[in-house]
Amino acid sequence: MASTEEVKTDTESGKEAPPPQPVLPSTATSWFKVDVVLRVLLFASTVTSLVVLVTSKQSISGRKFGLPPGSKVQIKFNNSPSFIYFLVALAVAGLYSIVTTLASISVTRKPQYSTKFLLHFVFWDVLILGILASAVGTAGGVAYVGLKGNDDVQWKKVCNNFDKFCRHIGASLAVSLCASVLLIFLIWLNVNSLHKKIPK
Amino acid sequence: MASTEEVKTDTESGKEAPPPQPVLPSTATSWFKVDVVLRVLLFASTVTSLVVLVTSKQSISGRKFGLPPGSKVQIKFNNSPSFIYFLVALAVAGLYSIVTTLASISVTRKPQYSTKFLLHFVFWDVLILGILASAVGTAGGVAYVGLKGNDDVQWKKVCNNFDKFCRHIGASLAVSLCASVLLIFLIWLNVNSLHKKIPK
Repeated sequence: MASTEEVKTDTESGKEAPPPQPVLPSTATSWFKVDVVLRVLLFASTVTSLVVLVTSKQSISGRKFGLPPGSKVQIKFNNSPSFIYFLVALAVAGLYSIVTTLASISVTRKPQYSTKFLLHFVFWDVLILGILASAVGTAGGVAYVGLKGNDDVQWKKVCNNFDKFCRHIGASLAVSLCASVLLIFLIWLNVNSLHKKIPK
Repeated sequence: MASTEEVKTDTESGKEAPPPQPVLPSTATSWFKVDVVLRVLLFASTVTSLVVLVTSKQSISGRKFGLPPGSKVQIKFNNSPSFIYFLVALAVAGLYSIVTTLASISVTRKPQYSTKFLLHFVFWDVLILGILASAVGTAGGVAYVGLKGNDDVQWKKVCNNFDKFCRHIGASLAVSLCASVLLIFLIWLNVNSLHKKIPK
């Protein structure tokens, strides 16, 4: 009954064609379910990366560096501005993933707003991708110098002494690279969902 | 029964109503003109950045470093793997901008393919943005160490001796940052164009 009533009102008001409905609500909702899963994964990866980065502190005996016995040499992520930028970007991406996961869940309950949400998701995802990718690059560039050194400008390796620190930085970088790839997939997914709503 | 009724109403109304055209061709074409302009700017910025990076070589007298008089110390961008990655990313983005500028011009002549092109543009733009932003970050991270040094790990400044080299790297980074921002605008523009094609 409900459907016949809808058709009637359509013909009365619009007189001509019914409004095109290229995507069924169920399909739109299933896209958003994938979106929610990817955003939860994004949150998990950014938080993991953040925790691994923050816990990278390492102290070793100062004797290796010709300091008196009993002294300690400590290395932390905040010795380098690059890693601080990396931390901030990870925190921003993590908070963003919480907000958008909640927004995405709300869309699965009210699919009529899905188009607007998709547009906003893509806009913000692109911005966060830019920030996160550049931060991964910044930290990766400095970490590579720490790993291999650079003889041309006499920057010595760090990782031969501070092995735990470097393992943490490396793991954090690997996980945050996954987060960047997840963001790319999220944008692709949402742009594809937008595209599917366009009538052929 | 319900389905046959629906088909009937469709065929009846279908005689009157034209196929849905949410965006007029002229509007779609004008969006693509902005797209072409942005892509030309992207090409210009990546090529500028590339040229400034490649011409950053600097030689100074070796006496500053305690070497015998008459000897030379040279610094080039390819002393650091980070700058090589930056160069490759700029070259990829530059070539990509040529291909997509031509594609975008072709769409202004045949607007009926615009939707498919928009989708592909966004897919690839996002990927190139990821590569370029990470490369700018990588080179920026290393350049910052060169500019300020890092006392905690005894990495000395480079820019106090190699001023021309650092000016070139800095300029190249600034221009390529503009290129990244242009890519973000391009994605926003194309996603917005896709969104405008969706019937309300």
